[in-house]
Amino acid sequence: MVRVNRQITLGSRPSGFPKISDFQLAYSALPSLAAGEALVRTLYLSLDPYMRGRMSDADSRDRPLAIGEVMPGGAVAVVVHSEDSGFRTGDVVEGMLGWQEYAVAHGSELRRVDPDLAPISTALGVLGLPGLAAYFGLLELGAPRDGETVVVSGAAGAVGMLVGQIAKIRGCRVVGVAGSDAEVSWLRDELGLDAVLNYRAAVDLEAALDDLCPVGVDVYFDNVGGVISDAVICRINRRGRIVVCGQISQDNLEAPELGPRWLSRLMMQQARAEGFLVSEYAERFPEGREQLAAWLKQGKLRYREDIAQGIEAAPQAFIGMLQGNNQGKQLVQLSGL
Amino acid sequence: MVRVNRQITLGSRPSGFPKISDFQLAYSALPSLAAGEALVRTLYLSLDPYMRGRMSDADSRDRPLAIGEVMPGGAVAVVVHSEDSGFRTGDVVEGMLGWQEYAVAHGSELRRVDPDLAPISTALGVLGLPGLAAYFGLLELGAPRDGETVVVSGAAGAVGMLVGQIAKIRGCRVVGVAGSDAEVSWLRDELGLDAVLNYRAAVDLEAALDDLCPVGVDVYFDNVGGVISDAVICRINRRGRIVVCGQISQDNLEAPELGPRWLSRLMMQQARAEGFLVSEYAERFPEGREQLAAWLKQGKLRYREDIAQGIEAAPQAFIGMLQGNNQGKQLVQLSGL
Repeated sequence: MVRVNRQITLGSRPSGFPKISDFQLAYSALPSLAAGEALVRTLYLSLDPYMRGRMSDADSRDRPLAIGEVMPGGAVAVVVHSEDSGFRTGDVVEGMLGWQEYAVAHGSELRRVDPDLAPISTALGVLGLPGLAAYFGLLELGAPRDGETVVVSGAAGAVGMLVGQIAKIRGCRVVGVAGSDAEVSWLRDELGLDAVLNYRAAVDLEAALDDLCPVGVDVYFDNVGGVISDAVICRINRRGRIVVCGQISQDNLEAPELGPRWLSRLMMQQARAEGFLVSEYAERFPEGREQLAAWLKQGKLRYREDIAQGIEAAPQAFIGMLQGNNQGKQLVQLSGL
Repeated sequence: MVRVNRQITLGSRPSGFPKISDFQLAYSALPSLAAGEALVRTLYLSLDPYMRGRMSDADSRDRPLAIGEVMPGGAVAVVVHSEDSGFRTGDVVEGMLGWQEYAVAHGSELRRVDPDLAPISTALGVLGLPGLAAYFGLLELGAPRDGETVVVSGAAGAVGMLVGQIAKIRGCRVVGVAGSDAEVSWLRDELGLDAVLNYRAAVDLEAALDDLCPVGVDVYFDNVGGVISDAVICRINRRGRIVVCGQISQDNLEAPELGPRWLSRLMMQQARAEGFLVSEYAERFPEGREQLAAWLKQGKLRYREDIAQGIEAAPQAFIGMLQGNNQGKQLVQLSGL
C-alpha cells in the first residue's frame, strides 16, 4: 500500500520573478512512520508571498531552502494513518506540510481542523495565518480607533481583504489599494470598503490618494511596498501607525529599489513604522481564531479563494500570485476529502 | 530707559541651505509690560536644526514663520524688570525668547534656571531640550538594554553627544557616527564611546559599519538621515528600534532625496522606526532634568559648547551648524550676566 509521493522542489534560485523552470516535480517513496507521527494526504495547499524569500539564499525571514528541498507551505490534509494517539484516520488537520501530495508529520506539528466550523479551506485563509495576520497586525500594531482613516495595500489579497473588513468592524473609514477594476468593485460593493483605488489605472497616485484621504492616513497596513507605500506614507498623520506586513512589490527585485526618503515625515508626525510577523503572536492564535470564526458566522467577514487544481499547477499559480493575478486567497487543491 | 532691541528676522525663505541674506537685522523699541509679564535680556541663544523647518513655508513640525518675523529659539536670559510676582530683577530664566537681545515674555512662558546647579548655558544643552531629547528619545523609544549595540548619528552634536553617554551609562556598546577626526577622538577618548566612525573619511560606509557592528544594530538613534541612515538601518537587528529625532542631512533639500527602500528589512526583522518630538514628554521634563543633573554632578555626562559672540554672528553660526561645522552644542552669547 506504499504510495508514490509527488512533490514540488526548488530546482534553482530565481533571479527576479521565479520561472516555471525554477521548480521541479519530484517523485519519492513515503518513509515509514515512527511513533507519534501521522501520514496525511494533502487537500489544499496555501501559496503565500513569504515562500519567495525562502527560495533566495539570503534576506529571508527564515533559513534559505536548499536546492532540491520540498517547497515549504501550509496545507490542510486528511489523516491516512496515524501512530499518534491524538489523531485518527479521517481527521482533517492543518500544518506546515510543504508542496507535496502526502506528508509525514509529528502529531505536535499538526492542528486539528473542525470541518463543522467553516469550509476546511478557511484554515488556510480567514481562520489561518492570513486571517491571524490581519487580526493581530491591524489590531495590535495598527491599533485603529473609531473614525480613523485606515489604508490597506494589496487590499484584495489574502490578508488585505480581511484587514479592510476588520477595520470596518472597528468603525474606521477604510481605503483600499488594489490592482484591477474587478477587485475595486468587489472590495467596495461587496466588502463595504469606503473607497478603493486601482493603482494600475491611476494616472496620478498622489492626487488620487489626496482625494480619497482628505484628512490624511492614521493607519497604513502595507502588504506591497514600493511606490504605493511612498505615496501613502507621505500622507501619514500625527502619531500614525504603519504596519509592514508584506512588501510583495520588492520581493522579486535583485537589488533594493530607490524611493523617496520619508523618515522626515515620520519624524514630523511622530509616526511609527513597524515590521510585523504573525508567528510572534502564536500564543494568542486561539483567541484570534475564535474572534475571526465568530465574525465569519455573523456574516461580518467575507472572503474569496482562487483555487488551482493539482500539484503540477502550483508553480504557475504561485508566480501568478506574486504578479497579483489571483482573485482572493491563492490555494491549490491536491485531492478531495 | 527704553532700550533699542536688536533682532534677527526672517528676510526671505531659503531654497536649500540658508544664506546670510535670508536673515535681517532689525531694530525695534521694546513694548511696555502688561501685568504678569517680564522684560528679559538674553544671555545665551540656542541654535537648533528645527529652526530651518520654520523658515520654510511647509513641512515643518510647526507653523511656518512669516517673512519679517523674529527667528524663534530657546534662550537663557536675565530678568531686567518684572510685572510678574514670580520673578525678580536678576533672576536667570529660560524660555522660547527668539533671536533678539531683549524679550518681553509672560511669566508662564519662563522657567527659572538655578545658577548653582550647573553653568547657566546648560539650560540650553544638557539640562535643556537637547538633553531631554537624548534622555526621553533614547530611553523611551530606543529602550536600550544592557549589552545591546546602540548606534547614534550626529554623535558629536548637541543631542548625539548625550545619547552616546546615556547609552554607555545603560551598559550598551555604543558606536557613534561623526563628521571629523577631531570629533571621533573626542567621542572615543574623552566620552568613552566604544567606536566612532568618521563618515566623511569612510571609503566604504557599509564595510566600516560591518566592522564596528559585527552583531548588528539594536538601537539606532538618528539625528541625520540620508546615506548614514540607509547603511545603519539595513543592519538593524530583530526587534530593533530606530528613533528618528533629526534628519539634518535632509532639512535643506528642495525635494526628497532618493534612497534604497528598506521597509523589507524592517519587516523581516520586526523592527520599528518612530518619529520623536521631545515636547511630547513635557510633563516628564522635571524627572528628566533631575536625572540629567545628577549624572552631570557625578561626572557621568560631559559636554562641549560652541559659542559665537553677538547677535550679528547668529546667522553664520546657524548655517555652520546645519553644515556640521560646530564643535558641540551651538550657542550665541548675546550679553554677560
